[in-house]
Amino acid sequence: MNRSVIVPNFDKNGLITVVAQEQCTGKILMVAHTDRTGFFETLTTSNAVYFSRSRNRRWIKGESSGNTQSVQDIKIDCDGDTVIYAVTQNGNGACHMGKYSCFYRSIIGSMFEPAAGKFDVEFIEVHPNFL
Amino acid sequence: MNRSVIVPNFDKNGLITVVAQEQCTGKILMVAHTDRTGFFETLTTSNAVYFSRSRNRRWIKGESSGNTQSVQDIKIDCDGDTVIYAVTQNGNGACHMGKYSCFYRSIIGSMFEPAAGKFDVEFIEVHPNFL
Repeated sequence: MNRSVIVPNFDKNGLITVVAQEQCTGKILMVAHTDRTGFFETLTTSNAVYFSRSRNRRWIKGESSGNTQSVQDIKIDCDGDTVIYAVTQNGNGACHMGKYSCFYRSIIGSMFEPAAGKFDVEFIEVHPNFL
Repeated sequence: MNRSVIVPNFDKNGLITVVAQEQCTGKILMVAHTDRTGFFETLTTSNAVYFSRSRNRRWIKGESSGNTQSVQDIKIDCDGDTVIYAVTQNGNGACHMGKYSCFYRSIIGSMFEPAAGKFDVEFIEVHPNFL
Protein backbone atom coordinates (compact mmCIF):
# COMPACT_ATOMS: atom_id res chain seq x y z
CA MET A 1 0.00 0.00 0.00
CA ASN A 2 1.39 3.39 -0.96
CA ARG A 3 1.77 5.94 1.81
CA SER A 4 2.26 9.66 1.59
CA VAL A 5 5.76 10.73 2.61
CA ILE A 6 6.82 14.25 3.50
CA VAL A 7 9.87 14.99 1.36
CA PRO A 8 12.66 16.90 3.17
CA ASN A 9 14.33 19.97 1.72
CA PHE A 10 17.50 18.84 -0.07
CA ASP A 11 18.39 22.33 -1.29
CA LYS A 12 21.60 22.51 0.79
CA ASN A 13 24.11 20.62 -1.39
CA GLY A 14 21.52 17.92 -2.01
CA LEU A 15 21.87 16.73 1.56
CA ILE A 16 19.95 16.74 4.82
CA THR A 17 21.28 16.18 8.31
CA VAL A 18 20.30 12.92 9.99
CA VAL A 19 20.32 12.20 13.71
CA ALA A 20 20.20 8.47 14.44
CA GLN A 21 18.44 7.94 17.77
CA GLU A 22 17.98 4.54 19.39
CA GLN A 23 14.23 4.10 19.59
CA CYS A 24 14.12 2.04 22.79
CA THR A 25 16.46 4.22 24.87
CA GLY A 26 16.41 7.69 23.28
CA LYS A 27 20.21 7.55 23.08
CA ILE A 28 21.68 9.58 20.22
CA LEU A 29 23.97 7.24 18.30
CA MET A 30 25.40 9.38 15.50
CA VAL A 31 24.84 12.44 13.32
CA ALA A 32 25.44 12.21 9.58
CA HIS A 33 23.89 13.20 6.26
CA THR A 34 21.87 11.62 3.51
CA ASP A 35 20.82 12.52 0.00
CA ARG A 36 17.45 12.15 -1.70
CA THR A 37 18.21 8.66 -2.98
CA GLY A 38 19.51 7.51 0.40
CA PHE A 39 16.44 8.91 2.09
CA PHE A 40 14.09 6.96 -0.17
CA GLU A 41 16.24 3.82 0.10
CA THR A 42 15.90 4.10 3.87
CA LEU A 43 12.12 4.35 3.53
CA THR A 44 11.78 1.39 1.20
CA THR A 45 14.30 -0.95 2.86
CA SER A 46 14.22 0.28 6.50
CA ASN A 47 18.03 0.07 6.54
CA ALA A 48 19.64 3.40 7.46
CA VAL A 49 21.36 4.84 4.38
CA TYR A 50 23.68 7.84 4.61
CA PHE A 51 25.83 9.94 2.31
CA SER A 52 29.48 10.41 3.21
CA ARG A 53 30.72 13.89 2.36
CA SER A 54 34.37 12.89 2.79
CA ARG A 55 34.06 9.83 0.51
CA ASN A 56 31.42 11.49 -1.70
CA ARG A 57 29.24 8.40 -1.88
CA ARG A 58 26.13 6.87 -0.42
CA TRP A 59 26.60 4.11 2.14
CA ILE A 60 24.37 1.63 3.87
CA LYS A 61 25.14 1.78 7.59
CA GLY A 62 26.87 -1.47 8.51
CA GLU A 63 27.64 -2.50 4.92
CA SER A 64 31.19 -3.38 5.97
CA SER A 65 30.95 -3.69 9.78
CA GLY A 66 27.61 -5.51 9.89
CA ASN A 67 26.41 -2.95 12.43
CA THR A 68 23.27 -2.06 10.51
CA GLN A 69 20.46 0.14 11.73
CA SER A 70 16.81 -0.85 11.28
CA VAL A 71 14.78 2.32 10.97
CA GLN A 72 11.33 2.25 12.64
CA ASP A 73 10.28 5.87 12.20
CA ILE A 74 11.55 9.11 10.69
CA LYS A 75 10.70 12.53 12.07
CA ILE A 76 11.33 15.83 10.29
CA ASP A 77 12.00 19.23 11.79
CA CYS A 78 10.07 22.43 11.27
CA ASP A 79 12.18 23.74 8.38
CA GLY A 80 12.57 20.35 6.74
CA ASP A 81 16.35 20.08 6.43
CA THR A 82 16.99 17.67 9.33
CA VAL A 83 15.46 14.31 10.17
CA ILE A 84 15.65 11.81 13.01
CA TYR A 85 16.02 8.14 12.17
CA ALA A 86 14.47 6.23 15.10
CA VAL A 87 16.48 3.01 14.89
CA THR A 88 17.21 -0.37 16.33
CA GLN A 89 21.00 -0.63 16.37
CA ASN A 90 22.24 -4.05 15.28
CA GLY A 91 25.64 -5.58 16.00
CA ASN A 92 28.16 -3.95 18.30
CA GLY A 93 27.19 -0.31 18.02
CA ALA A 94 27.12 2.72 15.76
CA CYS A 95 30.61 4.15 16.14
CA HIS A 96 33.65 3.20 14.06
CA MET A 97 35.72 3.67 17.23
CA GLY A 98 34.10 0.56 18.67
CA LYS A 99 31.77 2.54 20.95
CA TYR A 100 28.02 2.05 21.00
CA SER A 101 27.38 5.76 20.36
CA CYS A 102 29.66 8.25 18.64
CA PHE A 103 28.93 10.62 21.55
CA TYR A 104 30.93 8.72 24.15
CA ARG A 105 32.78 11.70 25.63
CA SER A 106 31.64 14.60 27.72
CA ILE A 107 33.29 17.90 26.80
CA ILE A 108 34.17 18.64 30.42
CA GLY A 109 37.08 17.04 32.20
CA SER A 110 38.60 17.62 35.61
CA MET A 111 41.28 20.23 36.12
CA PHE A 112 43.83 17.43 36.19
CA GLU A 113 42.77 15.64 33.04
CA PRO A 114 45.44 15.31 30.34
CA ALA A 115 44.82 16.27 26.74
CA ALA A 116 42.24 14.03 25.08
CA GLY A 117 44.27 12.48 22.29
CA LYS A 118 44.06 14.38 19.05
CA PHE A 119 41.66 16.94 20.47
CA ASP A 120 42.69 20.36 21.67
CA VAL A 121 41.93 21.05 25.30
CA GLU A 122 41.53 24.44 26.93
CA PHE A 123 41.19 25.22 30.59
CA ILE A 124 38.32 27.55 31.44
CA GLU A 125 36.02 28.25 34.33
CA VAL A 126 32.78 26.53 33.36
CA HIS A 127 29.33 27.27 34.74
CA PRO A 128 28.43 25.27 37.90
CA ASN A 129 25.67 23.46 35.92
CA PHE A 130 28.42 21.40 34.30
CA LEU A 131 30.11 20.29 37.50
CA MET B 1 38.03 26.21 39.41
CA ASN B 2 39.27 25.81 35.85
CA ARG B 3 38.31 22.62 34.06
CA SER B 4 39.77 21.10 30.94
CA VAL B 5 37.40 21.32 27.99
CA ILE B 6 37.68 19.33 24.78
CA VAL B 7 37.51 21.86 21.96
CA PRO B 8 35.44 20.74 18.95
CA ASN B 9 36.69 20.99 15.38
CA PHE B 10 35.40 24.25 13.91
CA ASP B 11 37.17 23.77 10.57
CA LYS B 12 33.89 23.53 8.61
CA ASN B 13 32.94 27.19 8.09
CA GLY B 14 33.80 27.91 11.72
CA LEU B 15 30.71 26.02 12.83
CA ILE B 16 29.76 22.76 14.49
CA THR B 17 26.40 21.01 14.48
CA VAL B 18 24.51 21.02 17.76
CA VAL B 19 21.74 18.61 18.76
CA ALA B 20 19.73 19.91 21.71
CA GLN B 21 18.40 16.95 23.68
CA GLU B 22 16.16 17.27 26.72
CA GLN B 23 18.15 15.73 29.53
CA CYS B 24 15.24 14.35 31.55
CA THR B 25 13.36 12.70 28.66
CA GLY B 26 15.93 12.10 25.90
CA LYS B 27 13.66 13.96 23.49
CA ILE B 28 15.51 15.70 20.65
CA LEU B 29 14.32 19.31 20.64
CA MET B 30 16.20 20.92 17.74
CA VAL B 31 19.31 20.73 15.57
CA ALA B 32 21.28 23.90 14.87
CA HIS B 33 24.86 25.21 14.73
CA THR B 34 27.22 27.17 16.89
CA ASP B 35 30.58 28.87 16.44
CA ARG B 36 33.61 28.87 18.72
CA THR B 37 32.48 31.93 20.64
CA GLY B 38 28.96 30.56 21.09
CA PHE B 39 30.35 27.25 22.27
CA PHE B 40 32.45 28.91 24.99
CA GLU B 41 29.58 31.24 25.94
CA THR B 42 27.44 28.14 26.44
CA LEU B 43 30.09 26.63 28.69
CA THR B 44 30.57 29.73 30.81
CA THR B 45 26.90 30.78 31.10
CA SER B 46 25.10 27.40 30.71
CA ASN B 47 22.63 29.13 28.37
CA ALA B 48 22.46 27.45 24.96
CA VAL B 49 24.04 29.75 22.38
CA TYR B 50 23.76 29.05 18.65
CA PHE B 51 24.84 30.64 15.39
CA SER B 52 22.20 31.31 12.75
CA ARG B 53 23.50 30.70 9.24
CA SER B 54 20.51 32.46 7.67
CA ARG B 55 20.87 35.58 9.84
CA ASN B 56 24.67 35.25 10.05
CA ARG B 57 24.81 36.00 13.75
CA ARG B 58 25.12 34.33 17.11
CA TRP B 59 21.95 34.05 19.19
CA ILE B 60 21.13 33.05 22.71
CA LYS B 61 18.27 30.56 22.56
CA GLY B 62 15.19 32.29 23.98
CA GLU B 63 16.63 35.80 23.78
CA SER B 64 13.35 37.01 22.24
CA SER B 65 10.89 34.24 23.12
CA GLY B 66 12.07 33.62 26.67
CA ASN B 67 12.27 29.90 25.88
CA THR B 68 15.86 29.53 27.03
CA GLN B 69 17.75 26.28 27.40
CA SER B 70 19.86 25.53 30.47
CA VAL B 71 22.70 23.27 29.40
CA GLN B 72 23.70 20.57 31.90
CA ASP B 73 26.21 18.61 29.88
CA ILE B 74 27.83 18.64 26.43
CA LYS B 75 28.91 15.49 24.62
CA ILE B 76 31.11 15.42 21.52
CA ASP B 77 31.19 12.85 18.74
CA CYS B 78 34.12 10.76 17.55
CA ASP B 79 35.27 13.16 14.83
CA GLY B 80 34.64 16.27 16.88
CA ASP B 81 32.38 18.28 14.59
CA THR B 82 29.05 17.64 16.32
CA VAL B 83 27.99 18.07 19.93
CA ILE B 84 24.92 17.32 22.02
CA TYR B 85 23.66 19.96 24.41
CA ALA B 86 21.87 18.08 27.21
CA VAL B 87 19.37 20.74 28.26
CA THR B 88 16.52 21.71 30.48
CA GLN B 89 14.01 23.45 28.20
CA ASN B 90 12.50 26.56 29.79
CA GLY B 91 9.27 28.28 28.78
CA ASN B 92 6.90 26.81 26.22
CA GLY B 93 9.27 24.75 24.11
CA ALA B 94 12.10 24.86 21.62
CA CYS B 95 10.32 25.35 18.30
CA HIS B 96 9.39 28.69 16.76
CA MET B 97 6.23 27.00 15.45
CA GLY B 98 4.95 26.80 19.01
CA LYS B 99 5.74 23.11 19.38
CA TYR B 100 7.82 21.69 22.20
CA SER B 101 10.23 20.00 19.78
CA CYS B 102 11.03 21.00 16.20
CA PHE B 103 10.59 17.30 15.30
CA TYR B 104 6.83 17.21 15.73
CA ARG B 105 6.01 15.39 12.48
CA SER B 106 6.59 11.86 11.35
CA ILE B 107 7.61 11.56 7.69
CA ILE B 108 5.02 8.88 7.03
CA GLY B 109 1.34 9.64 6.55
CA SER B 110 -1.58 7.45 5.57
CA MET B 111 -2.46 6.89 1.93
CA PHE B 112 -5.31 9.35 2.34
CA GLU B 113 -3.36 12.17 3.95
CA PRO B 114 -3.39 15.49 2.07
CA ALA B 115 -0.23 17.43 1.33
CA ALA B 116 1.49 18.68 4.49
CA GLY B 117 1.38 22.42 3.96
CA LYS B 118 4.46 23.77 2.25
CA PHE B 119 6.14 20.38 2.11
CA ASP B 120 6.21 18.20 -0.96
CA VAL B 121 4.60 14.83 -0.50
CA GLU B 122 5.25 11.72 -2.55
CA PHE B 123 3.39 8.44 -2.43
CA ILE B 124 5.62 5.40 -2.19
CA GLU B 125 5.46 1.88 -0.82
CA VAL B 126 7.36 2.09 2.44
CA HIS B 127 8.90 -0.81 4.33
CA PRO B 128 6.52 -2.53 6.82
CA ASN B 129 8.74 -1.32 9.71
CA PHE B 130 7.23 2.13 9.24
CA LEU B 131 3.59 1.02 9.36
